[in-house]
Amino acid sequence: MREEEIIVVALGGNAILQPGQPGTVEEQLENVDIACRHLTEIMSTGKYKMVITHGNGPQVGNLLLASEAAGHIIPPIPLDVCGAATQGMMGYMIQQTLANHLRAAGLRHYITTVVTQVIVDKNDPAFKRPTKPIGPFYDFAEGERLHWERGWEVIEDSKRGYRRVVPSPKPLAIQETRIIRNMLDNGEIVIAVGGGGIPVVREKDKSLRGIEAVIDKDLAVGRLAEDIDADILMVLTDVEQVMLNYGEVDEVGINRMTVDEAENYLKEGHFGEGSMKPKVEAGISFVKAGGEKTIITALNKAVEALEGKAGTIIIA
Amino acid sequence: MREEEIIVVALGGNAILQPGQPGTVEEQLENVDIACRHLTEIMSTGKYKMVITHGNGPQVGNLLLASEAAGHIIPPIPLDVCGAATQGMMGYMIQQTLANHLRAAGLRHYITTVVTQVIVDKNDPAFKRPTKPIGPFYDFAEGERLHWERGWEVIEDSKRGYRRVVPSPKPLAIQETRIIRNMLDNGEIVIAVGGGGIPVVREKDKSLRGIEAVIDKDLAVGRLAEDIDADILMVLTDVEQVMLNYGEVDEVGINRMTVDEAENYLKEGHFGEGSMKPKVEAGISFVKAGGEKTIITALNKAVEALEGKAGTIIIA
Repeated sequence: MREEEIIVVALGGNAILQPGQPGTVEEQLENVDIACRHLTEIMSTGKYKMVITHGNGPQVGNLLLASEAAGHIIPPIPLDVCGAATQGMMGYMIQQTLANHLRAAGLRHYITTVVTQVIVDKNDPAFKRPTKPIGPFYDFAEGERLHWERGWEVIEDSKRGYRRVVPSPKPLAIQETRIIRNMLDNGEIVIAVGGGGIPVVREKDKSLRGIEAVIDKDLAVGRLAEDIDADILMVLTDVEQVMLNYGEVDEVGINRMTVDEAENYLKEGHFGEGSMKPKVEAGISFVKAGGEKTIITALNKAVEALEGKAGTIIIA
Repeated sequence: MREEEIIVVALGGNAILQPGQPGTVEEQLENVDIACRHLTEIMSTGKYKMVITHGNGPQVGNLLLASEAAGHIIPPIPLDVCGAATQGMMGYMIQQTLANHLRAAGLRHYITTVVTQVIVDKNDPAFKRPTKPIGPFYDFAEGERLHWERGWEVIEDSKRGYRRVVPSPKPLAIQETRIIRNMLDNGEIVIAVGGGGIPVVREKDKSLRGIEAVIDKDLAVGRLAEDIDADILMVLTDVEQVMLNYGEVDEVGINRMTVDEAENYLKEGHFGEGSMKPKVEAGISFVKAGGEKTIITALNKAVEALEGKAGTIIIA
């Protein structure tokens, strides 16, 4: 019998909270339910050991809003701790819902969430140039006040107002790699690196410390897939395929591309900054490091894509 | 060489946030730092595999406050999800700080937090009689409003005002038992069952669902210690020993008591409801189920107590 392959599945932000939804737990559980139905289909093939990662943008946004609204009565929650909180909340929803679906499908897998720290370099140039908008929108005056009072970098974001921006450093290593790998070896399903992981830096004395930053979740999941020596990296997003000339009249879906082809497309600027670009970059890096393939597709095409019938595949 | 014993350590609420502290992350990290120094001393003996649990009362309180303060802009966070969030936040602080201390002491253990669900009975009589106060204090009018608008049970609490009370059902099983046990077998340190665990019930179709309740953390940790077949249950609290005639002129510390003696003291009403009583109950139950011993003591007496030189020990 062939050994199961290790697949790392990255759930897109919209898999849990869709744009425009205020974010009640009921809404989130409904979305999680749909995602878990598809994940169960993948597990039903009996071919895979699975790690699940997820975004946390809207959830961290809500938590920051709550923390600020209550700022006069409770102390603020720093970003690393916010990230840890959303890993707990969202991991819980996924592990419970997925276990229910697996049980209904007659599958038995233990499943849990591992609170995950991702190590970044203190000297990463990103710390000099914060780019990642987080939390609520402010008007100009409020943005100015927050800049001066709290030392935040504040920028105008997509003409909707002013937002805090934080650094988005490169993920160097996943602190819990060995634990996650051991769990997979035990046949367990693991939810990890939620929201790109909790960003931490290593001090001179080797100790770890949380830092105010947000790690790109696609790059973090790529890092994870490499570090645990996964076979397949599957990035689930809103579209069925990666597109060339996206949004143009001659846009065309890519069924399969080699690492070389993908790198050329990247250079030609086919993939959107902060959306498809980091997914393709993570996919390339994973395959270059020895991964079998990267698949980028929509949630409802996941099983078809594993059979080579849908999605975009990146191979060596 | 003798195999390491499995020890389950329950950190008291005050180990992370002390009464009167508003609860900044800096304060919490300082307290966690002290706790982790003692936990590192225990691990330095080389005799133990360790699971760590912790309370979450003040942290859930702050999260509920924030959630309510922001109630006009973000949806409320139900109690099970609040519990999951605090497991993530506090687990993160403990796993990072403890790893730093272990590294400084020359010890190498992988360590992480497992988001933990605890199964309770839907028909537990506790659901008919909510007793556990949570969240902020309200004045009478606000309490009345919340009772009628949200269906909350609200009681007068310790003459400081009115508070929501929720059911405190008995923990029946830890959903992540197998995973935690596997991690211990791999030599990993596990943080689990934070705040008594996330309360879930099993529906007719066998699926799990979160529920608005709070599980007593001492009973939950006892349940965990039994289920993973631990050797030692160590409950760390504010006092060095369990007392007879506590608070009276003839109060006296107990060095050692058998299960029978402990049950008699319980009947005689020596131990405070909601404080020492559940600790002793959990300790008795653990030893009756085959555990070697339960130790109840203060954080700074932990190592001495393991050597039999401090604390209160419950044995068969």
